[in-house]
Amino acid sequence: MKIEQNHIQDTNKKDLTSHQEHFDFLSNSLTKKGVDVNKIISKLQDFQVAIPSWALGAGGTRFGRFSFYGEPSSLEQKIQDVGVLHTLTQTAGAVSLHIPWDIPQDYNAIKEIASGLDIKFDAVNSNTFQDQANAKESYKYGSLSNVSQAVRQQAIQHNLDVINIGNKLGSKSLTVWLADGSCFPGQTNFQTALQNTESSLKEIYKDLPTDWSMLIEYKPYEPNFYSTVIQDWGTSFMLANACGEKAFSLVDLGHHLPNSNIEQIVSILMSKAKLGGFHFNDSKYGDDDLTVGSIKPYALFLIFNELVYGMENNPANPDLAWMIDASHNVKDPLEDLIQSLEAIQEAYAKALLIDQNKLKQAQLNHDVVKCQEILQNAYRTDVRPLLEKARLERGGALSPINTYRALDVRNELIKERGRNTVATGL
Amino acid sequence: MKIEQNHIQDTNKKDLTSHQEHFDFLSNSLTKKGVDVNKIISKLQDFQVAIPSWALGAGGTRFGRFSFYGEPSSLEQKIQDVGVLHTLTQTAGAVSLHIPWDIPQDYNAIKEIASGLDIKFDAVNSNTFQDQANAKESYKYGSLSNVSQAVRQQAIQHNLDVINIGNKLGSKSLTVWLADGSCFPGQTNFQTALQNTESSLKEIYKDLPTDWSMLIEYKPYEPNFYSTVIQDWGTSFMLANACGEKAFSLVDLGHHLPNSNIEQIVSILMSKAKLGGFHFNDSKYGDDDLTVGSIKPYALFLIFNELVYGMENNPANPDLAWMIDASHNVKDPLEDLIQSLEAIQEAYAKALLIDQNKLKQAQLNHDVVKCQEILQNAYRTDVRPLLEKARLERGGALSPINTYRALDVRNELIKERGRNTVATGL
Amino acid sequence: MKIEQNHIQDTNKKDLTSHQEHFDFLSNSLTKKGVDVNKIISKLQDFQVAIPSWALGAGGTRFGRFSFYGEPSSLEQKIQDVGVLHTLTQTAGAVSLHIPWDIPQDYNAIKEIASGLDIKFDAVNSNTFQDQANAKESYKYGSLSNVSQAVRQQAIQHNLDVINIGNKLGSKSLTVWLADGSCFPGQTNFQTALQNTESSLKEIYKDLPTDWSMLIEYKPYEPNFYSTVIQDWGTSFMLANACGEKAFSLVDLGHHLPNSNIEQIVSILMSKAKLGGFHFNDSKYGDDDLTVGSIKPYALFLIFNELVYGMENNPANPDLAWMIDASHNVKDPLEDLIQSLEAIQEAYAKALLIDQNKLKQAQLNHDVVKCQEILQNAYRTDVRPLLEKARLERGGALSPINTYRALDVRNELIKERGRNTVATGL
Amino acid sequence: MKIEQNHIQDTNKKDLTSHQEHFDFLSNSLTKKGVDVNKIISKLQDFQVAIPSWALGAGGTRFGRFSFYGEPSSLEQKIQDVGVLHTLTQTAGAVSLHIPWDIPQDYNAIKEIASGLDIKFDAVNSNTFQDQANAKESYKYGSLSNVSQAVRQQAIQHNLDVINIGNKLGSKSLTVWLADGSCFPGQTNFQTALQNTESSLKEIYKDLPTDWSMLIEYKPYEPNFYSTVIQDWGTSFMLANACGEKAFSLVDLGHHLPNSNIEQIVSILMSKAKLGGFHFNDSKYGDDDLTVGSIKPYALFLIFNELVYGMENNPANPDLAWMIDASHNVKDPLEDLIQSLEAIQEAYAKALLIDQNKLKQAQLNHDVVKCQEILQNAYRTDVRPLLEKARLERGGALSPINTYRALDVRNELIKERGRNTVATGL
Repeated sequence: MKIEQNHIQDTNKKDLTSHQEHFDFLSNSLTKKGVDVNKIISKLQDFQVAIPSWALGAGGTRFGRFSFYGEPSSLEQKIQDVGVLHTLTQTAGAVSLHIPWDIPQDYNAIKEIASGLDIKFDAVNSNTFQDQANAKESYKYGSLSNVSQAVRQQAIQHNLDVINIGNKLGSKSLTVWLADGSCFPGQTNFQTALQNTESSLKEIYKDLPTDWSMLIEYKPYEPNFYSTVIQDWGTSFMLANACGEKAFSLVDLGHHLPNSNIEQIVSILMSKAKLGGFHFNDSKYGDDDLTVGSIKPYALFLIFNELVYGMENNPANPDLAWMIDASHNVKDPLEDLIQSLEAIQEAYAKALLIDQNKLKQAQLNHDVVKCQEILQNAYRTDVRPLLEKARLERGGALSPINTYRALDVRNELIKERGRNTVATGL
Repeated sequence: MKIEQNHIQDTNKKDLTSHQEHFDFLSNSLTKKGVDVNKIISKLQDFQVAIPSWALGAGGTRFGRFSFYGEPSSLEQKIQDVGVLHTLTQTAGAVSLHIPWDIPQDYNAIKEIASGLDIKFDAVNSNTFQDQANAKESYKYGSLSNVSQAVRQQAIQHNLDVINIGNKLGSKSLTVWLADGSCFPGQTNFQTALQNTESSLKEIYKDLPTDWSMLIEYKPYEPNFYSTVIQDWGTSFMLANACGEKAFSLVDLGHHLPNSNIEQIVSILMSKAKLGGFHFNDSKYGDDDLTVGSIKPYALFLIFNELVYGMENNPANPDLAWMIDASHNVKDPLEDLIQSLEAIQEAYAKALLIDQNKLKQAQLNHDVVKCQEILQNAYRTDVRPLLEKARLERGGALSPINTYRALDVRNELIKERGRNTVATGL
Repeated sequence: MKIEQNHIQDTNKKDLTSHQEHFDFLSNSLTKKGVDVNKIISKLQDFQVAIPSWALGAGGTRFGRFSFYGEPSSLEQKIQDVGVLHTLTQTAGAVSLHIPWDIPQDYNAIKEIASGLDIKFDAVNSNTFQDQANAKESYKYGSLSNVSQAVRQQAIQHNLDVINIGNKLGSKSLTVWLADGSCFPGQTNFQTALQNTESSLKEIYKDLPTDWSMLIEYKPYEPNFYSTVIQDWGTSFMLANACGEKAFSLVDLGHHLPNSNIEQIVSILMSKAKLGGFHFNDSKYGDDDLTVGSIKPYALFLIFNELVYGMENNPANPDLAWMIDASHNVKDPLEDLIQSLEAIQEAYAKALLIDQNKLKQAQLNHDVVKCQEILQNAYRTDVRPLLEKARLERGGALSPINTYRALDVRNELIKERGRNTVATGL
Repeated sequence: MKIEQNHIQDTNKKDLTSHQEHFDFLSNSLTKKGVDVNKIISKLQDFQVAIPSWALGAGGTRFGRFSFYGEPSSLEQKIQDVGVLHTLTQTAGAVSLHIPWDIPQDYNAIKEIASGLDIKFDAVNSNTFQDQANAKESYKYGSLSNVSQAVRQQAIQHNLDVINIGNKLGSKSLTVWLADGSCFPGQTNFQTALQNTESSLKEIYKDLPTDWSMLIEYKPYEPNFYSTVIQDWGTSFMLANACGEKAFSLVDLGHHLPNSNIEQIVSILMSKAKLGGFHFNDSKYGDDDLTVGSIKPYALFLIFNELVYGMENNPANPDLAWMIDASHNVKDPLEDLIQSLEAIQEAYAKALLIDQNKLKQAQLNHDVVKCQEILQNAYRTDVRPLLEKARLERGGALSPINTYRALDVRNELIKERGRNTVATGL
């Protein structure tokens, strides 16, 4: 299944006039206020978010899983799905693979499919939270942090294998999400677990290609329910520092305790040049992995405010590995990702509208009311015409969701792939 | 200090053209989609929110308080402050008094000032969380729930006194916020405390005037840090049922445990015709009493979605007592209230834009993606021109904050009242 | 696998003297303080907790599952496992079945096995959170709350089938845990979902046998991550009232928002004669389903304080359906349940030590310090000799864990059943 | 008011026999298991906790304050109160002053009173969260983090003054609790605030006496309700590293987000030799400042497990500054502190009972059940006889609370000081 340009143009047609009117009005209005609209559109176009291969099938919970139809059952099909997203939205120009779920059988073939769809290979993800068939050692009691050297060694080697696979595809970073921890007090020694983790990460880091980054994710709980070895940004930051300048922290929006101020964490990491990756999703309770922007869009905007500020003011940070890490039961996965991509672009566009000079001045004056007015003024602006324009210029759909439905993509996929396919992953 | 109409019109002038352009464009665009813009504006104009007398001075925390200048030091001045707000915003047409902080000395004089400013007396609030000078009994260990009959009796009588005062002013409801609870396990017997509370509330209810409502607030913690007698909506609802048909629950947005789904609570209470009052504020951690809409504006929108639905579909509920219950250290209290009023109107307007028929249809089709699109479509709309129009038609300010500043209101108040006045209250 | 009495007596032998010394010393010391030690032991012996069939295999998370060996693969084997627990601990005299996982093929055979092990059939659990093979309707978008009448009808019929199955085995109650809810704002209409749920429950209730109870569980989130139809005790209580006097709320310790005061909820439900069932487990973050007492043993003690008080003072409540609802990855499930049973008995014994008269007097005197002293005095007592005595008198093991290991039970089970069996369930 | 030794001995008399019996039985039982009882008692005796001067009066909330009678109204009286505590418990041999509330007028006199009561001067606390009368600059918008250099300079100078005062009294550490932060998004620039804080702390650090430590406290929220500059251990740790080897993190038990794993934080800080101070209290919701051990005694035990482990295995950490930071409305403050001291000693004693070798072995074997058994075995032991013995040997009271009441201390204090005195502080 590949979406043809002319089909997109056809569906765009009927809304073009209305779009143009809205865009002109907004553009005019923003220009009067001193906003460089073209610059914003250009930034929106440059902002590409990776799709993780596991988000293309329906997710599940420990209570079960309700499948969606026409899921991709091979790596090739997963990349085709990303292609559908990218063609429609023009902002999903990368895929993030998960090993061992996505080991290519024919590297050249895979690379060709991807490049044909203008899709890059972003960070590769290792998996030491599940046992693989025929694995010698089990990760039941931990992997990189395990008290057993044999287990740690297996987990280290797996990460090196993942780097190797990624390297062949053109990836430039490894994401380590370490599920290790404990379910009960006393189960592990915190100090030992941390030291083992540090040693293991250093082993992996030692063999990291020169132009690669290592991204260290953190998470307070789940699947372990008493402690997690890398439980917060502080620990991730400490480990990244211990490894070296190519190691960074990775922030996943769902990996925080209730009421956390995530934008402040983003800001601190950027100020110390240690933010390397970012996983988007949304949540109300825990790591709910809901559609980006579906629960707390203002928090997302505030986070983007820090990201925009950091990208402007902290050049020592690397180009961030942006990825959507969401997973769902009740929506068509592709429609869900389209909604996520839209929410990301929206938050980014609004953050770009913040008048940073005025904000700084108001902060210097302790004019708290004005600080809020400046932020809310940007946030309250309806930026959808800017997003449409950015897509339109690149050949994307005015409304990706509507076009996806108009082109009956899901039914096409079901026709091609059959109904009850199941994507590998969660 | 009273703001004159012509001063407002003068400051409006320079933005009138721009407003009209934006309003016309939006109105045109909405009308095309089938929205009855005039109806929305009319609803916005009818939506009046009470200002509590204690929000007019700077709030504090247990760690201290930084005063603001020119605070009102008498009930007359407090009502004047509400007058300022109402004149500018046209949505603050009521004041909510707190007894004993606001006992009028001359009822007629007070009523005259209020009616001259088009301000009604909304719910009156009793206070049994502090000891009053010369009180015979102390509320240190509880009031309406106390094991001592004498203490309960004093607290009951105080509530009856509050009703009496409110009655003279034209109020039609009593808000009972009961801080009673315990700081340590074992300190109180939960069952006894609840039974005492039920009996006490019934005593008060018995003497409630026929056309009055009793609003029972709930809160999980603070100032008691182990338990609160009326800790959640379930307990409030149970007590309201026990009292009778003039007793209702009151929802304060800040009075919930982390991650609560408040909109669902609102919905349940409305479906059972037991939602009687609503306190607006915002918070990130607990009962932070921040400016409405400053932290979680989307949650506010979702709550308004339920309120709008309930007002349409659950006519058995009373007219709600809307009030802002916020309190601040770092903003001019009047500017803060203006920002709160704006955020309320914005959320209300956006909720009114939701296409309830389409939403219902999408729900019937289990089209979760479309349900979200419908909500977000309403939320993403920039409704500020509608709010401006609603104010403008009533003689209010296009931008209340800007006008407040342009007219130098705070300095005028300082001139009139002196610098270091302190408002009674928290 | 059945544990023989003489094997238990043999392993008890070496610790008998030490036990007797500790028991005598404690008994003597408590008797001096006016405690009726025999009465406490008798109450401990009467306190029987049901084991849910699904806790006998290793649990998992959405990130995977690490199996344990020798898991029971049939209902017969599950009951044998409960038999092992009961023989050792003398407090696990009941099993709670989950339909459709545990539908008996030969009812008489199953009943015979159970009665031979002195095991009763406690509440039966329905399952409408997963689709069954060949089911006509899907529960993907809800079951009892679904907008589709056909789906609701299927879910109602399933509950009636479960009652029927339970009835044949001697069960006297149905537990309804309703996972229904929504993952995204707007997905469902809260009022409709609640009304549908109420109607459906009433349908089930209508056919409940006269001597049965219906237990309505609540939970704030998971597997739905935006809203749950029966999200808290208030909703459960409201629904139980709507159904009638045989309907009750069921409290699961893990089904609460952060920082909830669960003991107060227990107390309120008991004071209104609406507490019908209780699920034990422990948690640090959410519904973690950890071993009872492993994280917050003092909270468990405070909850038992309310349960003891309620059982004494609120006779209108039914005999509660006690059950352990835990599920684990990293422990032998049987050892885990032994630890849970021990923690329950410990908390119960300590709660029985609270001097209720002195506590009441201290509460009347507002002597908060003494209230705390009374609770902590009970809690700090090492009650293990009482638990040992209670078991010993009934033929159980002094130390169930040690005996389980000494008798090499797990290896016996593996020998009998094979290594890689998998229990049905989560 | 000074408690005389012979009065304590007199009240001890009637319980001596019972104590001796319980101690002998426990000691005998523990010795059989290989525990060195004398060593534990000796460690308990060496463990001295500082009393903060502000805990000696009744605390309050933003909703008001209910006074206690006979509160100390001068520094001399505060130290006498600590003397009462220390004489009774033998574990409160230090006081922690708060400047400017406790500036001595006559240093020698103060030192003499303290040394006469065997009380040391522990960490001194600065206060930049309130404005002092006649201060030139206001801390309303921050102190060490303020965008205004003049404000920062005033706050730095205040800290230096505090060091100077502490130095004259024999203190060896400065505790910096920085309340700075923001109440609204946009109010401050996170990066600027952090950089200013780092610079300010370095300024203070520069003038720290050679044998002093600087302890940097963290807290997620309150009194600021959107962000706090030093919001978590990670930021505190980062700042301590930036300052140098005499700077450390300080953990206050109440300063964490819901569900935090505090014991893991303690463990990480100790493993990196950066834990310098510790504030004890307990809480259910936020920074509730309740009596130590009154809500989550098992969590306290787990934290002590890490402290004991760290003190054994991480010698690079300094001697920790232990302090109780609790504050209450409903208890006699001295009784409350006695209960806190008892809970601390209890948790410490239980942690000392953990068999670390067996625990390590079980961890190596992944025997999670046994790990839990080892911890619970220690925790379930009734260690009160050990605490009594430790006090008794030093001349303290068998039961400090009972003796305090038997000697009618509060009434003596009221006689001496009058009824309505108010302690300076919160």
